[in-house]
Amino acid sequence: MLKTAAGALLPVDPETRALAQDLYESVAHAPVISPHGHVPAAWLARNEAFKDPADLLVVHDHYVTRLLHANGIKLEALGQGGGPADPREVWRTLASHWHLFAGTASGYWMNETLRTVFGIERPVSAESADESYDTIAAALATPEFLPRALLARFGIAFLATTDDPCDDLADHRIIAAASDVSACVVPTYRPDKYLEPARAEFPSHVRRLLETAGVSDETYVGYVEAHRRRRVHFAAHGATATDHGVDVPVTADLSEARAEELFAQAMRGEIDAADAVQLRGHMLTTMAELSVEDGLVMMLHPGVRRNHHTATFERFGPDTGHDIPIRTEYTDNLRPLLQRFGTAEGFHLVLFTVDETVFSREIAPLAGFYPAVYAGAPWWFLDAPDAIDRYRGAVTETAGFYKTAGFIDDTRAYLSIPVRHDTARRRDAAFIARLVSEGRLDRETAMRVIADVTTAVPTKVWKL
Amino acid sequence: MLKTAAGALLPVDPETRALAQDLYESVAHAPVISPHGHVPAAWLARNEAFKDPADLLVVHDHYVTRLLHANGIKLEALGQGGGPADPREVWRTLASHWHLFAGTASGYWMNETLRTVFGIERPVSAESADESYDTIAAALATPEFLPRALLARFGIAFLATTDDPCDDLADHRIIAAASDVSACVVPTYRPDKYLEPARAEFPSHVRRLLETAGVSDETYVGYVEAHRRRRVHFAAHGATATDHGVDVPVTADLSEARAEELFAQAMRGEIDAADAVQLRGHMLTTMAELSVEDGLVMMLHPGVRRNHHTATFERFGPDTGHDIPIRTEYTDNLRPLLQRFGTAEGFHLVLFTVDETVFSREIAPLAGFYPAVYAGAPWWFLDAPDAIDRYRGAVTETAGFYKTAGFIDDTRAYLSIPVRHDTARRRDAAFIARLVSEGRLDRETAMRVIADVTTAVPTKVWKL
Amino acid sequence: MLKTAAGALLPVDPETRALAQDLYESVAHAPVISPHGHVPAAWLARNEAFKDPADLLVVHDHYVTRLLHANGIKLEALGQGGGPADPREVWRTLASHWHLFAGTASGYWMNETLRTVFGIERPVSAESADESYDTIAAALATPEFLPRALLARFGIAFLATTDDPCDDLADHRIIAAASDVSACVVPTYRPDKYLEPARAEFPSHVRRLLETAGVSDETYVGYVEAHRRRRVHFAAHGATATDHGVDVPVTADLSEARAEELFAQAMRGEIDAADAVQLRGHMLTTMAELSVEDGLVMMLHPGVRRNHHTATFERFGPDTGHDIPIRTEYTDNLRPLLQRFGTAEGFHLVLFTVDETVFSREIAPLAGFYPAVYAGAPWWFLDAPDAIDRYRGAVTETAGFYKTAGFIDDTRAYLSIPVRHDTARRRDAAFIARLVSEGRLDRETAMRVIADVTTAVPTKVWKL
Repeated sequence: MLKTAAGALLPVDPETRALAQDLYESVAHAPVISPHGHVPAAWLARNEAFKDPADLLVVHDHYVTRLLHANGIKLEALGQGGGPADPREVWRTLASHWHLFAGTASGYWMNETLRTVFGIERPVSAESADESYDTIAAALATPEFLPRALLARFGIAFLATTDDPCDDLADHRIIAAASDVSACVVPTYRPDKYLEPARAEFPSHVRRLLETAGVSDETYVGYVEAHRRRRVHFAAHGATATDHGVDVPVTADLSEARAEELFAQAMRGEIDAADAVQLRGHMLTTMAELSVEDGLVMMLHPGVRRNHHTATFERFGPDTGHDIPIRTEYTDNLRPLLQRFGTAEGFHLVLFTVDETVFSREIAPLAGFYPAVYAGAPWWFLDAPDAIDRYRGAVTETAGFYKTAGFIDDTRAYLSIPVRHDTARRRDAAFIARLVSEGRLDRETAMRVIADVTTAVPTKVWKL
Repeated sequence: MLKTAAGALLPVDPETRALAQDLYESVAHAPVISPHGHVPAAWLARNEAFKDPADLLVVHDHYVTRLLHANGIKLEALGQGGGPADPREVWRTLASHWHLFAGTASGYWMNETLRTVFGIERPVSAESADESYDTIAAALATPEFLPRALLARFGIAFLATTDDPCDDLADHRIIAAASDVSACVVPTYRPDKYLEPARAEFPSHVRRLLETAGVSDETYVGYVEAHRRRRVHFAAHGATATDHGVDVPVTADLSEARAEELFAQAMRGEIDAADAVQLRGHMLTTMAELSVEDGLVMMLHPGVRRNHHTATFERFGPDTGHDIPIRTEYTDNLRPLLQRFGTAEGFHLVLFTVDETVFSREIAPLAGFYPAVYAGAPWWFLDAPDAIDRYRGAVTETAGFYKTAGFIDDTRAYLSIPVRHDTARRRDAAFIARLVSEGRLDRETAMRVIADVTTAVPTKVWKL
Repeated sequence: MLKTAAGALLPVDPETRALAQDLYESVAHAPVISPHGHVPAAWLARNEAFKDPADLLVVHDHYVTRLLHANGIKLEALGQGGGPADPREVWRTLASHWHLFAGTASGYWMNETLRTVFGIERPVSAESADESYDTIAAALATPEFLPRALLARFGIAFLATTDDPCDDLADHRIIAAASDVSACVVPTYRPDKYLEPARAEFPSHVRRLLETAGVSDETYVGYVEAHRRRRVHFAAHGATATDHGVDVPVTADLSEARAEELFAQAMRGEIDAADAVQLRGHMLTTMAELSVEDGLVMMLHPGVRRNHHTATFERFGPDTGHDIPIRTEYTDNLRPLLQRFGTAEGFHLVLFTVDETVFSREIAPLAGFYPAVYAGAPWWFLDAPDAIDRYRGAVTETAGFYKTAGFIDDTRAYLSIPVRHDTARRRDAAFIARLVSEGRLDRETAMRVIADVTTAVPTKVWKL
């Protein structure tokens, strides 16, 4: 973990800031645990130099490109859509619009990344663009900036990638065999497209899954067996978790006969929309059942309308900045799953949301009763300083610190990983320090809590 | 009211804290007004010594047991479900998991209760468990810790219990006749189960209500008359309020004929789900009508999915920690009731919520127009320091302080009553002090407001 | 802009307050830009003296009358409903209930208005009522308090009124021709009643629109052409924007044939409720299309249930304090419109809400991707100090400062305009100062941002 600026993100009251600084320093150098993210395993398997500053820091970071797009920059000019774009021009475009990022999480991360990773102290601007570009480009050409070297420098102890169930995980085998990978790098089982029975591609996806798993039985029982085998394959490569993204987190508990009937309809491409929601809900409950069997932690990331602007999706593909949150409901939607597995021994279900209203109303109360349920970190649009405060404020009074699940960075922006985790540690320190200043926690307990939420809590929740 | 630690829960800025301290001290010793709670009248009627520390402080406090359960402790081990549990072991279990309560409202209340009620300064921990158990157990055996003695010591001036309409209120007569009960202890009319026409037990509940009220007419008119008489009975025992818990606060204004028709269907067990919601909505409007007649304040506590985990409910019963909030809507749902009685002379409708989003969006605007509507205190999961801040922040700018309704503790955890009210007073002081520091209120007005929200406002709203 | 009290509304921490004060002072005297409000153009066209203190400051300000009403004052006693009310008595009523406004936005505005506009330092109270009444009445009789003089004194540079599409805008021509109007005063195209096909008056409204526009073709094509012409008329009088208030912001993209079919049904008064929602949604999309053509900025103000209490509406008319917010959804509702025009060159769509949950969940993510979308200022119940903080906290981390749209006062309370804008500037300064104190923004950028959000951002967004 790299040292960011003293006082940054800490409370403004001097006495509380001093206490927060002490709390923060006690965990500032703790290893980074990243149980969910999107760094490609191939980067660490191949360990090739990053291409150029724009490709590494701009082109693939849809937090950055979307805000430039929102302010009138075409995505083509940012190297998206496969068109040619001079990386130096992309970097200049970012730099000359840098004021747009004032006050944003991305702006803070970029500044801190440039400072702590590349030693660039001069503010980003049109004037300094070429200088910073050259500094970064030069650094990327050195061995110290190869992916594996950075992994060590960043103090990352655990890094989970996100992978398709049919992936043979060859890259993970290469990484595991390498002597110069300092972290534990593991895959995560992300079967989303095999749980969308309403989609036209569903039958072909399922057939590939069955084939990959060596299952010939094209029934719901066969489908479950295929997942079971692939999950074993993932677990054998170190996976500790599965990840599920859905729009609405409906769960269901169908009879075997009904599940088979709907599955057969789906495989014929004949399932109607309402039944497809029920079947997907049943599939999620089945995933929980498999987690009870094999111990994989189940993550749920619902509530996002993907690819909101169809023309942009068709031209530039997914993950181009227009996945927009929608309202989310857990209390009724998760009930069928929790009725069956909410108190199951060893089952961990980590709930995420981009709808903040759910934290105090639903997630904290659920995590405050069900042994299986954990309140996931504020995610995506919410993994920012003020949003982290609101999360702690909304969850802690009901569920405490020990039913949360540690920070997740959920990022492909590899270089921002340290500063993102540092942000969370600082804001946790700020929150806990305020509790001490307000007489709600003694200093000794505060030191224990900051240490635990940084290390012990994620270690336990994610079964590391 | 017992004195809690100086500075606790007050703002961290020194100047604002000093002002908040002055504001707080001006009301710290004001009598406690508790217009809604769950202390059994029998405790004060019989005035027997509390059983043991675990029974008093852990076993029946589902805020406490749910969080232990969420962290893997079985409810059986906490004395739930009627099984034998050594109270000292229960206490040790709590003490050895005390870090789980760091930052929670329950943790703060327990610490302050031990300190202020029992003089226990040593932090709760596995090591101190036996010592604190013995201290508490010894105290409970003394006359100073009998329920009536504590009532006086806690400075409670008004305490409302929550009672079934068929209750003959004998305990309240005993209390009223006792010379050593320093507070005004009154019942509250809570007719929930008589307003759920979709439930199988509805007809038998209604028949008992009619019988108890001496009404032979098994029609909606008779049903209303039975309520009318029982409310008179309650009012004669000092009741000033009725309390209504529903999942969704739909109200309706049916024709007499339609109400009779649906009521008859319900009494035959033949009402369908949608009609049952309409009938219940009409019953709520009828309750408002009766309040206009007899002056009883109407409380509405909607938005909770009760007994979320069926297996736990079946084994351990209700109120075991898995009542989970759901989204709540007031603007459209309450409109039929408010169309009829929103401006009715003397009618008071106090709205509560466990869905915070409603405070600024619906409750404050409604309370900011309708003379009948008051914004109830943050309740249940929200009666905690940070949530109280958010409530004041969300409500005050639209509705001010004078359309709120004072604090309610809503608790059966008798010993926590003083510290809960103290928490509310401290957070109100903190909020008001900030307004002064920000130039939004002068100091003189601030002193008036803190006094009023502590005493005058609840006295007026609850018609004490 | 008049100078309000030093330190008011700024952070309590001394160092952060000093910084906020510097930021605030750098924009305190910047001209007021008011791109949306309800000051009648006639006031400035006729430039007659205001009637009396009560009429100017109480009777027509439903923020003020509703809270008095909520506390038991009859609207008649406040001069509403056309009945006779002695203005001095109305003023005394307000003054003697002044504590009800403690902590409210209206209370702060009134205090600051009295102090800065009339030089009244003595607190409002029953005792001071006559004195302040006389002071105000005397002032209103002087030339310095005529509407045009105040416009200059208030430092208002741009003021948009809100107008019916059939308005011939004669008052605006008078204002434009006047040599003593220091501000740019322009109309806004507000066609709400022509976009409500379910209402009984819809056909007659449309016929008047067609007639006014000189269009004889009673089809959807003719209807659109009529809007087109009236918008040109408005633009010729300086309008830069259209304003749309709907309950639910459904948008739709119907085929031409379907639009004609539904429009014909609506003109016959035969459209059903669901189709009317679709047609209105299509009309909104058409409005966006016209904005792409003519460049008028499109404002959307959804989510309010108008005239909640029917009896009050029938007796006192609209805008009498019982418009109550409802939940609002943008992600799915706006999608049809944004699919077509979300990336259209030069199109500006400014989204407002009275449902705060939408800021971080939907508005910021939409504004953070679509070039057309801007996050409107917190509005109505939310244009208050704490709500402004919550708005910046919810929006900035995702969308920054440059996809917001400047402050709007949305008011008919003419004298409160300066203090409302001053409130926004102070809270922006407070928010930005905290970012600096927390190391998230450097001081130089902070100075640029406060200047931009005060002037450059609204100038660009509203195309001034």
